[in-house]
Amino acid sequence: MTENLLGLATDLYELTMAQSYLEHGKIGNAVFSLFVRKLPEKRNFLVSCGLEILLEHLERFRFSDRELKYLKSLKIFSDSFLDYLREYEFKGKVYAIPEGRVFFQNEPVIQIEGSLPEVQILETLVINVIHFQVVVASKAVRSYLVAKGKPLVDFGFRRAHTVEGGIYAARASYIAGFEGSSNLEAGLRFGIPVFGTMAHSYVMIFDSEEEAFKSFAESFPDRTIFLLDTYDTLKAAKKAVKLAKEGVKAVGVRLDSGDIKELSVKVRKILDEAGLRDTKIFVSGGVDETKIKEWLMENAPIDAFGVGTKFITSADAPYLDMAYKLVEYEGKPKVKKSPGKVTFPFKRQVLRHYEGGVMSYDETLRYEDTDRGLVELVLENQTLKKELPSLKDIRNTLKDELETLPEGLKSIDEKEEYKVLVR
Amino acid sequence: MTENLLGLATDLYELTMAQSYLEHGKIGNAVFSLFVRKLPEKRNFLVSCGLEILLEHLERFRFSDRELKYLKSLKIFSDSFLDYLREYEFKGKVYAIPEGRVFFQNEPVIQIEGSLPEVQILETLVINVIHFQVVVASKAVRSYLVAKGKPLVDFGFRRAHTVEGGIYAARASYIAGFEGSSNLEAGLRFGIPVFGTMAHSYVMIFDSEEEAFKSFAESFPDRTIFLLDTYDTLKAAKKAVKLAKEGVKAVGVRLDSGDIKELSVKVRKILDEAGLRDTKIFVSGGVDETKIKEWLMENAPIDAFGVGTKFITSADAPYLDMAYKLVEYEGKPKVKKSPGKVTFPFKRQVLRHYEGGVMSYDETLRYEDTDRGLVELVLENQTLKKELPSLKDIRNTLKDELETLPEGLKSIDEKEEYKVLVR
Repeated sequence: MTENLLGLATDLYELTMAQSYLEHGKIGNAVFSLFVRKLPEKRNFLVSCGLEILLEHLERFRFSDRELKYLKSLKIFSDSFLDYLREYEFKGKVYAIPEGRVFFQNEPVIQIEGSLPEVQILETLVINVIHFQVVVASKAVRSYLVAKGKPLVDFGFRRAHTVEGGIYAARASYIAGFEGSSNLEAGLRFGIPVFGTMAHSYVMIFDSEEEAFKSFAESFPDRTIFLLDTYDTLKAAKKAVKLAKEGVKAVGVRLDSGDIKELSVKVRKILDEAGLRDTKIFVSGGVDETKIKEWLMENAPIDAFGVGTKFITSADAPYLDMAYKLVEYEGKPKVKKSPGKVTFPFKRQVLRHYEGGVMSYDETLRYEDTDRGLVELVLENQTLKKELPSLKDIRNTLKDELETLPEGLKSIDEKEEYKVLVR
Repeated sequence: MTENLLGLATDLYELTMAQSYLEHGKIGNAVFSLFVRKLPEKRNFLVSCGLEILLEHLERFRFSDRELKYLKSLKIFSDSFLDYLREYEFKGKVYAIPEGRVFFQNEPVIQIEGSLPEVQILETLVINVIHFQVVVASKAVRSYLVAKGKPLVDFGFRRAHTVEGGIYAARASYIAGFEGSSNLEAGLRFGIPVFGTMAHSYVMIFDSEEEAFKSFAESFPDRTIFLLDTYDTLKAAKKAVKLAKEGVKAVGVRLDSGDIKELSVKVRKILDEAGLRDTKIFVSGGVDETKIKEWLMENAPIDAFGVGTKFITSADAPYLDMAYKLVEYEGKPKVKKSPGKVTFPFKRQVLRHYEGGVMSYDETLRYEDTDRGLVELVLENQTLKKELPSLKDIRNTLKDELETLPEGLKSIDEKEEYKVLVR
């Protein structure tokens, strides 16, 4: 169990500051706000994601002998501070914009309230958990926006930054509208549908491509997708036709390299001419929202997409200018004035205004100044204040939200700013 | 314990293929090679990293009731295949280019040998673990190459893609020549030196900046670094001087925003004029190799760098074109011919040739055709074939290797190709 504690999932300075706060009586009620200062060039909106995972991480943010022995060995901390850490459990409040909602610059996606040292030492962990999942959900939704309802599957696990990264990215992509993932651990943990085809190695192992296709269909008669590009895509398509005539059926074929648009047209023709109109064409290999949009604009006969590396690393925007800033202490506003970095004071609520069913602008104001808004109190004194929604509900929340998103914000190439009024 | 098993850290298709291999008697000896097809535009070389972590992951790649129950629920797999997985433990061989060595396109950084199903199902995990650590070590070393011996510290934890990502990135950056990390868990697990200063929130909590500085110095008299940019960097530098005259000493100051070059000059002047020549200037906030190079070329009086977000996400090259490909089966060569994707057959060795102490070209050839080279047999039948080097040794290996790197390859802006002869 102790190996699963996360007390050291933090930066050294969080703990030195906390000790010094305690030594100087700075233990009043504090609010930290997690927000994004400015959206990346390629993002018109962000998707709230990761709250449930954050709550799990917060529960595990504790210190056992393993952690305390190490901290003592550093000869930095006082014994009384180590005692404080031994007793540490987060008992404060978490406010959040729920998962699956769209949010923008200067909007507090997470706010943490508690005694100053208690909430200071969570900084690194809170940013780490939420930042990545917002990054990857906000990337995945771009594919969803251009796929015109065609199924998308997360194929990125292998190039995710760590195993854990692959698992959380699968979850984020499902929220963003993907149909499922190749990632089995994500399937188990989150109930996400899992998908898979075959790899080139499978085709290469058999004496012929035909034998490989046949063998796979023998093993999995109802779920075979032939990978066509190991040797020659069009010849392989013809082999699929020949096998179908012999009774060896595939639900689909996969194209993984070459000129996907051209190949999809030619393969579709080969399949259709043989009467295999129900055989789907699945594509993978460097797929991202730009390619999906391009192929579909050219009417490429593609039925589904495996989206991998560029999505899971959010290659065009792998990080956000996200900060966890002190906004309130003992009821008083806190503002930092470094150049280019301004924080809005106080715990905040976000109001979303609509015109004809379309979002027109957002407004952030003091949490106490309104009784409605996007921000919800989620956790207080180790107790959930409301049941967390299921993953499917979160996914539906986002689908509904996207219906109300202004058309301009849905563009994957044109920058459009959404107005956030800070009061 | 079972929660720590990694059997499901794989893609669905690895398991369907494995079942079909078993059903068709394809259980001969296979070799898969992990290599990079083409280096990114911004990388002239890569750093081998992650082997020790991979070996730990391989040990945990097993299936308990938790995993098997889930797989059974999918109604895809046969009972005899699930029995195979229950007994699964990797007993094959791992060949590797040791951590801390430089490597290039088409060189097998990892090769895995064993029965075909046994090594097929490791594909996703092997790529996942090694890919990220090579990405991040190869990014970190760029800062090391331009820092001219000035200390670098990993400050990236909060924007790493997951907690695990931050921990492995800290390790990779230490290998790449960083002095240490802010990441406490990495400090504990790997013995990496840990560093930290103070955050803006600390300064803001006190009634005045002066009081904040003084309070921190009271708590940590020997390791105080004043953060200067919460309100006004130059005014804060003057406060540091005033405090020093009162006996409140800091080992350094930190600049985190604004025109770092200009501010460093002005702050240095303020400190020097007060006789505080030993007070170091530490900078952070968007630091990467491009900025380090620029500042040092302009002789900015900076003593150390906190390198964060852009390093830990490898923002300019967040992924590699890395593949795990079948190269040999039952002693016979295996080659795939998809357009633009060619695999070199057979288990391979890499020979590095030098001229006057400088690397001149590499050569890859069949493993059996030579008795020397970079590639080492590391694991066989669950037994280490040689002791793994300490992290410090790996770090020194890389330092030595960089001494032999051709000057052109050390450039962070100019692309230069290194010759790898494939025989």
